[in-house]
Amino acid sequence: MCRDIIENIQPLDRRLLEAANKKIDGKTKPPGALGRLEELAVQMCLVQNTLAPQIRRKHLFVFAGDHGVTREGISAFPADVTGQMVLNFLNGGAAINVLCRHHDIAMKVVDMGIVPDLEDHPDLIQKKVAHGTRNLAREAAMSIAEAILALEHGMSVFLDAHAESPIDIMGVGEMGIGNTTPAAAIIAAITGISPARAVGRGTGLDDRGLGHKIEIVERALALHYPDPTDGFEVLRTVGGFEIAGIAGAVLAAASKNTAVVLDGVIATAAGLIAARINPDITGFLIAGHRSVEPAHAAALDFMGLDPLMDFNMRLGEGTGAALAMDTVEAACKIMTQMASFEDASVTGPAEG
Amino acid sequence: MCRDIIENIQPLDRRLLEAANKKIDGKTKPPGALGRLEELAVQMCLVQNTLAPQIRRKHLFVFAGDHGVTREGISAFPADVTGQMVLNFLNGGAAINVLCRHHDIAMKVVDMGIVPDLEDHPDLIQKKVAHGTRNLAREAAMSIAEAILALEHGMSVFLDAHAESPIDIMGVGEMGIGNTTPAAAIIAAITGISPARAVGRGTGLDDRGLGHKIEIVERALALHYPDPTDGFEVLRTVGGFEIAGIAGAVLAAASKNTAVVLDGVIATAAGLIAARINPDITGFLIAGHRSVEPAHAAALDFMGLDPLMDFNMRLGEGTGAALAMDTVEAACKIMTQMASFEDASVTGPAEG
Repeated sequence: MCRDIIENIQPLDRRLLEAANKKIDGKTKPPGALGRLEELAVQMCLVQNTLAPQIRRKHLFVFAGDHGVTREGISAFPADVTGQMVLNFLNGGAAINVLCRHHDIAMKVVDMGIVPDLEDHPDLIQKKVAHGTRNLAREAAMSIAEAILALEHGMSVFLDAHAESPIDIMGVGEMGIGNTTPAAAIIAAITGISPARAVGRGTGLDDRGLGHKIEIVERALALHYPDPTDGFEVLRTVGGFEIAGIAGAVLAAASKNTAVVLDGVIATAAGLIAARINPDITGFLIAGHRSVEPAHAAALDFMGLDPLMDFNMRLGEGTGAALAMDTVEAACKIMTQMASFEDASVTGPAEG
Repeated sequence: MCRDIIENIQPLDRRLLEAANKKIDGKTKPPGALGRLEELAVQMCLVQNTLAPQIRRKHLFVFAGDHGVTREGISAFPADVTGQMVLNFLNGGAAINVLCRHHDIAMKVVDMGIVPDLEDHPDLIQKKVAHGTRNLAREAAMSIAEAILALEHGMSVFLDAHAESPIDIMGVGEMGIGNTTPAAAIIAAITGISPARAVGRGTGLDDRGLGHKIEIVERALALHYPDPTDGFEVLRTVGGFEIAGIAGAVLAAASKNTAVVLDGVIATAAGLIAARINPDITGFLIAGHRSVEPAHAAALDFMGLDPLMDFNMRLGEGTGAALAMDTVEAACKIMTQMASFEDASVTGPAEG
C-alpha cells in the first residue's frame, strides 16, 4: 500500500494560479488587504483545483504513542500521562475537544502505540504497532517492519475516513509524553541544526533537565547517524509511532488533494518526514501555529511554511491546527462569498 | 448623557485574578501551554466578574464616515467609495459580512457622517452628524457640538443594542475613505511619534502619495496643536465621525463591563481617544490584529495591548476584530469546558 500512495502524489497543480489571483484581486478591497486570508484562499483554489474552494467536512486526528526514551528522564510529566490523556480525549475534556467542538471539527483519537491497552470506543481508532517505541538513545526506536506498519496505519486512518465521507481539510495533532525529544532529533537530523538549538523545554523542563535532554538527542544522533535525506530512516531510528502515523496520514491526504493543517513541533516534524519521503506534499500543507519549541521554526523554514497563529502555545494535541482550520474555512468563504467591484458597483483604486 | 457614562466606568475588578489563574492552571495541560488563550480566558473572567465567562451574543458595529481631508488627495480610492462600500455592507457582500456570518456575529452598519443620504435598511443605524467632516488640514474636523454629538451617538449605538439583548463581546470596525490620515494624526498627537513614523500607505499610496500624506498630517498638527492629554480635543480637531462613534461605543461598553475587540489602526486610534478620556477602559480592550499601518504599534504600546492575529491585513471594516472575537469565545470555552487534572484523573507535572 505504502509505495503506491507515495507514488500517486502529484505536486500542487498551479494552472489556476493566475485566475485565482485575479479573482481575489477583484473582490471589494484594496489588493492584498486581507493578507494571509488571501494567500490561503488562493492556495485552497490550487489544492481543490477550483476557483470556488469549499470546506464542508473538517476532520482532525490525534495520534498517540509512547516513547521508550522517557526512561532517560526527558519529560516533566510521567509516561503514564499519555494513556490518561487519551482517556481524557475520549471523555471530551481536553483542550482539543473544546476547540474541535467550537469549530465543528470531527475528531478521532488514534492509538498508534501507547503502553496501556484501551477498550473500544466510538472515537478511538485502534492501530497499535507496539506498547511504546524502544529507547532511541540506546537503539533504533522501531524495526523496519514497525516503521512501515506505522506509516501504513497512518495512511489508512485518513483513507478510511475519507472514503466514508470526503474530508476537505485534515488537522493533525498528537499526544505522547516525551515526544518533543524525537521531534527535536528528527528536525536536527534533517535540517542540520544542532541538538542544542533544536531541543526545548517541552511541557516544562528546568535548566538541568534541558541540558540532559540535549545530551540525549546528541547521543541518539551520534549512535544512529541517519542519512538526512532518507525520511524513512530518520523516522525509524529516532521517530515515534504517533509521528509515523501523522506522516502516513499527510502522505495519504496529499494523494487525495486534501489540505493538511499541521499543529506544533511534533506534527511539523512528522510533516518533515513526509516531505523527505515525497517533497510534492508541501503544496498541500498549512502551518497552523508557531510553537515556542525552538526546532519548530527550522522545520517550517525547511518546508517554506509560515505559521498562521502565534499564540505562544506549546500544548500539541492539534490545538493550533484546530484554530487554523477555521481560518482556512473563512478564507475559502472570502473567495466564494465576497462581492467583486463589478458585482457591488464599487469604484476601484485610482490608477498610478 | 456623555459625562454620566464616562464617570460610570469602573476599572477592571481584579479580585478574581488569583482564582482565575488557579482555575486555568488546574486544567489538563502544562501550566501556560495554551498561551494567549489562557490570558484571554483570565481577562474574560475579570471582565465578566465570574470564573465561568460566557459569550452568548457577539455584536460588531461598522461605523462609517466621510472626511473633508480627502480633498487633499491622501487616498488611493475616491471618496465616493465610502458610500458605495456602506451599500456593499448592507447587501452582505463585503469581507466583514463574510466573516461575521462565518462566526455568527450580529452586525450593523452605522452612518456616523457619510456624504450620501441612505434609505432606511434593517442593518443600518442612522446617526449622521454631518455630510462628512471638514478638512482637518485647514480647520478643525468638527465643531465642539458635533464632536459631543458623535460621541453620544456612538454610546447610544452600543447601549440601545445592549438594552435589547445583552452583548457579551463587541467588535468595532469602520469604513471611511481617507481615514488613515486622521488615525495617524490622532496617534501622532497622543503618543508623540512623528507624522513621518505614523503615516502609512493606507489602501495603497505610492511613495509620492505617502510623502504628501505625511506633509498633510504635519500641517494639521502644526495648525491645531491639540493638547495630547485631552482626548476630546484631539478627536475634535483631527478626528472623524466614525472614529468618534467608535470611541463613544467603547466607553459605553466599558461602562457595562462588556469586552471590546478593536480592529486595525482606525479602531485603535478611536480606542486611544477613549483611553485618553477615561484610562479605566483599557482593561476591557482586546487588540484583534496587528495592522500593517505603522502608527498601529505605537497606539497599542501606549495602551499596553498586544494584538492576537498577525495576518498582514490592512482592510479595516472590523475584519481583524471578527476573527479575534471567535478566538475570545474559544478561550472562554477553555475556561468552562475543559477538564481539570482532578476531574480527569490525570497526573500533574513532576515537582521540581
